[in-house]
Amino acid sequence: MLSETIELRGHIIDSLILPKVLDEIITHGGSFKITEIKIGENRADQSFARIEVRGPSAAALDDLILRLRQHGAEVVEKKSVQLAAAPADGVFPQEFYTTTNQQTFVRLDDGEIEVQPALMDCAIVVDRTARKATATKFCGVKKGMEIVVGHKGIRVIPQQRSISRKDAFEFMAGNVSIEKPKSVVIREIAREFKRAREEKGKILVVAGPAVVHTGAAEHLEKLIEQGYVNLLFTGNGLAVHDIENALYGTSLGVQLEEGEVAEKGRENYMRAINVIRGAGGIRAAVASGLLTSGIMYTCVKHGVDFVLAGSIRDDGPLPDVITDALNAQEAMQAKIGGVTIALMMGTMLHSIAVANLLPATVKMLCVDINPGVVAKLADRGTFQAVGLVTDLEPFLRELAGCIESDR
Amino acid sequence: MLSETIELRGHIIDSLILPKVLDEIITHGGSFKITEIKIGENRADQSFARIEVRGPSAAALDDLILRLRQHGAEVVEKKSVQLAAAPADGVFPQEFYTTTNQQTFVRLDDGEIEVQPALMDCAIVVDRTARKATATKFCGVKKGMEIVVGHKGIRVIPQQRSISRKDAFEFMAGNVSIEKPKSVVIREIAREFKRAREEKGKILVVAGPAVVHTGAAEHLEKLIEQGYVNLLFTGNGLAVHDIENALYGTSLGVQLEEGEVAEKGRENYMRAINVIRGAGGIRAAVASGLLTSGIMYTCVKHGVDFVLAGSIRDDGPLPDVITDALNAQEAMQAKIGGVTIALMMGTMLHSIAVANLLPATVKMLCVDINPGVVAKLADRGTFQAVGLVTDLEPFLRELAGCIESDR
Amino acid sequence: MLSETIELRGHIIDSLILPKVLDEIITHGGSFKITEIKIGENRADQSFARIEVRGPSAAALDDLILRLRQHGAEVVEKKSVQLAAAPADGVFPQEFYTTTNQQTFVRLDDGEIEVQPALMDCAIVVDRTARKATATKFCGVKKGMEIVVGHKGIRVIPQQRSISRKDAFEFMAGNVSIEKPKSVVIREIAREFKRAREEKGKILVVAGPAVVHTGAAEHLEKLIEQGYVNLLFTGNGLAVHDIENALYGTSLGVQLEEGEVAEKGRENYMRAINVIRGAGGIRAAVASGLLTSGIMYTCVKHGVDFVLAGSIRDDGPLPDVITDALNAQEAMQAKIGGVTIALMMGTMLHSIAVANLLPATVKMLCVDINPGVVAKLADRGTFQAVGLVTDLEPFLRELAGCIESDR
Amino acid sequence: MLSETIELRGHIIDSLILPKVLDEIITHGGSFKITEIKIGENRADQSFARIEVRGPSAAALDDLILRLRQHGAEVVEKKSVQLAAAPADGVFPQEFYTTTNQQTFVRLDDGEIEVQPALMDCAIVVDRTARKATATKFCGVKKGMEIVVGHKGIRVIPQQRSISRKDAFEFMAGNVSIEKPKSVVIREIAREFKRAREEKGKILVVAGPAVVHTGAAEHLEKLIEQGYVNLLFTGNGLAVHDIENALYGTSLGVQLEEGEVAEKGRENYMRAINVIRGAGGIRAAVASGLLTSGIMYTCVKHGVDFVLAGSIRDDGPLPDVITDALNAQEAMQAKIGGVTIALMMGTMLHSIAVANLLPATVKMLCVDINPGVVAKLADRGTFQAVGLVTDLEPFLRELAGCIESDR
Repeated sequence: MLSETIELRGHIIDSLILPKVLDEIITHGGSFKITEIKIGENRADQSFARIEVRGPSAAALDDLILRLRQHGAEVVEKKSVQLAAAPADGVFPQEFYTTTNQQTFVRLDDGEIEVQPALMDCAIVVDRTARKATATKFCGVKKGMEIVVGHKGIRVIPQQRSISRKDAFEFMAGNVSIEKPKSVVIREIAREFKRAREEKGKILVVAGPAVVHTGAAEHLEKLIEQGYVNLLFTGNGLAVHDIENALYGTSLGVQLEEGEVAEKGRENYMRAINVIRGAGGIRAAVASGLLTSGIMYTCVKHGVDFVLAGSIRDDGPLPDVITDALNAQEAMQAKIGGVTIALMMGTMLHSIAVANLLPATVKMLCVDINPGVVAKLADRGTFQAVGLVTDLEPFLRELAGCIESDR
Repeated sequence: MLSETIELRGHIIDSLILPKVLDEIITHGGSFKITEIKIGENRADQSFARIEVRGPSAAALDDLILRLRQHGAEVVEKKSVQLAAAPADGVFPQEFYTTTNQQTFVRLDDGEIEVQPALMDCAIVVDRTARKATATKFCGVKKGMEIVVGHKGIRVIPQQRSISRKDAFEFMAGNVSIEKPKSVVIREIAREFKRAREEKGKILVVAGPAVVHTGAAEHLEKLIEQGYVNLLFTGNGLAVHDIENALYGTSLGVQLEEGEVAEKGRENYMRAINVIRGAGGIRAAVASGLLTSGIMYTCVKHGVDFVLAGSIRDDGPLPDVITDALNAQEAMQAKIGGVTIALMMGTMLHSIAVANLLPATVKMLCVDINPGVVAKLADRGTFQAVGLVTDLEPFLRELAGCIESDR
Repeated sequence: MLSETIELRGHIIDSLILPKVLDEIITHGGSFKITEIKIGENRADQSFARIEVRGPSAAALDDLILRLRQHGAEVVEKKSVQLAAAPADGVFPQEFYTTTNQQTFVRLDDGEIEVQPALMDCAIVVDRTARKATATKFCGVKKGMEIVVGHKGIRVIPQQRSISRKDAFEFMAGNVSIEKPKSVVIREIAREFKRAREEKGKILVVAGPAVVHTGAAEHLEKLIEQGYVNLLFTGNGLAVHDIENALYGTSLGVQLEEGEVAEKGRENYMRAINVIRGAGGIRAAVASGLLTSGIMYTCVKHGVDFVLAGSIRDDGPLPDVITDALNAQEAMQAKIGGVTIALMMGTMLHSIAVANLLPATVKMLCVDINPGVVAKLADRGTFQAVGLVTDLEPFLRELAGCIESDR
Repeated sequence: MLSETIELRGHIIDSLILPKVLDEIITHGGSFKITEIKIGENRADQSFARIEVRGPSAAALDDLILRLRQHGAEVVEKKSVQLAAAPADGVFPQEFYTTTNQQTFVRLDDGEIEVQPALMDCAIVVDRTARKATATKFCGVKKGMEIVVGHKGIRVIPQQRSISRKDAFEFMAGNVSIEKPKSVVIREIAREFKRAREEKGKILVVAGPAVVHTGAAEHLEKLIEQGYVNLLFTGNGLAVHDIENALYGTSLGVQLEEGEVAEKGRENYMRAINVIRGAGGIRAAVASGLLTSGIMYTCVKHGVDFVLAGSIRDDGPLPDVITDALNAQEAMQAKIGGVTIALMMGTMLHSIAVANLLPATVKMLCVDINPGVVAKLADRGTFQAVGLVTDLEPFLRELAGCIESDR
């Protein structure tokens, strides 16, 4: 049996880090001896544990240590990362290390460098001269770049539960229950939004067309007008339905205002696309006075940046849509810096795409009437993702109301 | 090939009756010849068709005619119903006719008698002397009673679509879409509620505990106070959670008011049951001043009648709960007369139980956040059932708001 | 600040007991000092912690200790339970202690007595003379019985995770994912079934009518024939549809065998009820040769005991149905002793009712195509409940196949 | 009141065309007089109706006639289509006619030209010289092309129900019930597959990664090997998970074969992408012997054409993925000719994208465990879309079994 000694620091008991580490050791065929443990007397105190980890073979022990690092385990004897050259453009060396979205450091020679940005599913490109470590997607890699392989010399700082209980995102973490009093939760979220704005954090909204179909556009517009949306990521669907509604008062042919509820088919939808194509894009249509209301109009008027990412089910699309998936990912990635809250509503595709780009420190709130969508998004193993199963229109109405009444 | 001639009358084209009848004939191996057809020139006009139906054997033709009667087909040559005696208490004669919840007549000697009530899944007990025909459940039958067998001499009047398009229940029939602007629909429903009250129709609410869990109780109380609920059918669950909330401010241990969102477990829930058991029941607890708020309290104060029907998952239960399923069905059946609208929220068990007791003329609105529940209830093949997939709390809030603002 | 000292024993780290206890203390406004901690070196070793718990007032400390006891905390200074007399038949004294379904002991004078059975949502009736402590539902209590109040002198042994990882129920605990390779899971379950039979544990099946609708009856019959079902809890629905299928080859009018897929309406369903009512019950119908196949027939033939619990949506019902909810609960409770695995399929009502009667030691497997139902049942905070979101027919087919092939 | 006379031909009663037409007239404020009606005596006979339609204004009547044309109404007085020039590349003239996916003819001078292909959400580009009418998407239009505007001179042939009842797709049209005996349905589908192959129709499979996650890949491979898949449309997700499974035996880190069910995280997934990127693509990886099993391998080996359409949530992606949405739509459109059955499994995004490209004559079968997805796809108002709510693995296992056993 080979062994290695690891150390854990922080709120390792109540953030469940110690139990998870012991669990991993046993589950993967290892055994352990806790050689030292110091548990914080009260919540604010940090705890510490030194554990001797044993595995049946060098490979198994290596594999095990790799897993424990994801939980923040630090190997006592410090080693530098191993690097290998990328064999071709867009291809990583074989044993490349895959990043998580947690804060990560690599040890190079005597010091540690933080990997930037905290982006999942990347390899780490190391520039020895500049002493920089960059999380890089497949398309960003060039032949010969030096890339981290294996797992030595890597330290991950898992997101730890905060000490105060005041934070709605922690309290409700992973909660997707349908039968909950949502008013209380929505008031908490309104408070988080205000706190974010006070602290100059950016609020990102990711939204699908259901925001328009359910008649919730006006509430989202209010949030934009009051400065509670700094960035909107959506697709062709929401934009077209919003513009259809602005131009003709219908959404997929259904009239949203009082009066006759009449099915009008897809004509207005297709015509809305044609009008914006004719104008040369959304901003041009606003500038020329063609588009005078709606979510997209309000974004333009209030200088809220947006990305419309394309999909294969798009009609048209509008000229503003980025139809190439990689370009769209890059466009979103480029704008995501400084975001502290991401509100995702009514779209699984865009929400997952964006969640894959966010660091673990961003608070994610996913709202959908379909419990399956909420569960998929909220269940990302962090204390920072909250799911709410509810109808979009009343959710946004109440959120906008809370924010307004509290001013 | 044997044949029989049937006649259809009413809005047989646009209520889809004629297409369904022709479909049934072909599907079941028959053939037809339309010997006369007169189609109303405009919507208000009734249409008429006389059809010669052919079948390969007497039994097949009989079976076919039985089906066509469910769509309102009338056999030209009029025959009396056939009767047989019940062989034992609680047992029907072998070939008993099973009722639907549509208006039905039986021909006895020279005249027709209407079957009362329009209740599904019953046999028809005929009292020749009193010339009465009664839809009777298994438990109501006594040995020797005369019961309709076969299908001769029965005429069913299927619910036909109304001529005016103003009616929300018809327009949305069977609609369970999630992505719809619900505000418009809720305003329509508020209008139906007002119309019902003006026309002295009773409004029945069937509700599950989610009404309390989601924080919607106060909105339901408003509807009760304003006279828009004449009857409440629910179970032990809603009543206990409502009383737990009234006594301790929690629902299943979750505090519903602003402030700390804290899990308190099941103590309050169990204590609420014990308090009402000690008091001798809900009405006694209101009378003695123990219970001073909540849905059940408001019902008692405003003289709204209620039935609490038991289920095998009940805790306690409260003394007011009818624990025997047959007694509970009878209690509901006894109060259902005069109901014109049934609003069903957050309970599949009670909703199906009640739907089985309602005549086809009652308008049913089913609201649930689970599309499966809504689909099951709304899909009853009538023009009178509407499903709405949404969250209960905002639904009730908006409905109560619409009714109030419009006064 | 007042303080009390508690002790925790067992797998308190990897069963998450210590983290949960510390969490509860902080969350409820207390603070702690860990005065001694000994963590097992490897998984089989038990751990131990002694913690000084401090609270702001005697009442708050009392409340806090009560919560910690649910996690197995033992107060170092031992006290006897407090008892009070029931004020009336069916009513508990005000501050009654509410049981969980975990193993529980009460301290009386110098010794401890185990509460029997391990049944949730009961009060504990103590018979000092016989030194017996009985978990008793509301209806079981008589005026003057001595009942535990407050929380002193109670010790709860929470279900701890087992040491070996071989157990499918632990591994998948709470798992309701749709996108999982179910074949692997089903093979594990088949092994659990075999193990249960070898160890003379009883297997309880709780099933809803979807077992018949989906064409899965034959697979359930195979399990019964091979001795893998010791007890069947179901309702009127499954029994009638099963008998309809046995007598007429249809389920709710849909033919289950190859050939024409034809809707036949509710006649066969109603006739099936009538036939069994005429015969005097299921067993009588089997004895007289009327009923010669199906699930209910196979139960009778193989001496498998069943309970048919009534509900308010039942038609008929069959004479075998216990229509009173309390009587049905009692009938199920009376037969539940010795059950080690409960397989729940296609019924939320019966599954929750039965789950409420089971001790925490019983392994529960809930199978349904609706993720909401599975989540509700699997999420009971134990390591022993497993949820599987899948279609009933292929699930039962594969389970029966695994059991057969492995013999 | 202005009037116009229309004619309807075909199975206008039992395909519900006449009722729908009368309904549209009334609903949109018109009125009608049936001046002639001839109803086929038996099912094979065609019916005929001549109807005088009246509207309150020329615009309203025009609008109404447009709607009636979608149901196949033909205006008695024949007119040529109106054409207008496209104002710019990628922009249609203002009043452009939007196509459906039904067979459509335009009248030009004295004759009629069929619009090719039958593709929805397009404009119709007319080439007078070549006498060709082409359904064209936004991106296909060039400045100056002549495009149909208004609705005159257009004739739509709605898909009519076939006379025989043998066809599973018609029988189950729109059926999404969970509680159905699926074995019967699957046998019908197997027959449709065989019929398609005999009649040289192409079978298109659209599949999401759940096919691999649920362990169903081997069944899909069998269908491919036996020649029952002519075309596979999917995305990066399925391909990567399939290749991960082929290379490492896991899907998203979960082992699919018997043995330990262990979570291995995302390493294998990322490594699989890297391997194929290194090889230069799927076909190259097969050719070089790197990839020797799985769905993608089987497609390559059996010459089954595939399109991998990109999305913004893709990792990697594989070199074979078409990352631009418009290019991906075009690639799919280019291969779709000759498809008679489309089987869609476990992907809403790709299924909707493909459904938008299919003519109304293609039979669509949508299989998903989520009833919402099935409902959205099956509810396209045709007799040709069937939905099945079930688990993918047993569905494909049984389908492959039926096809094999029947040979």
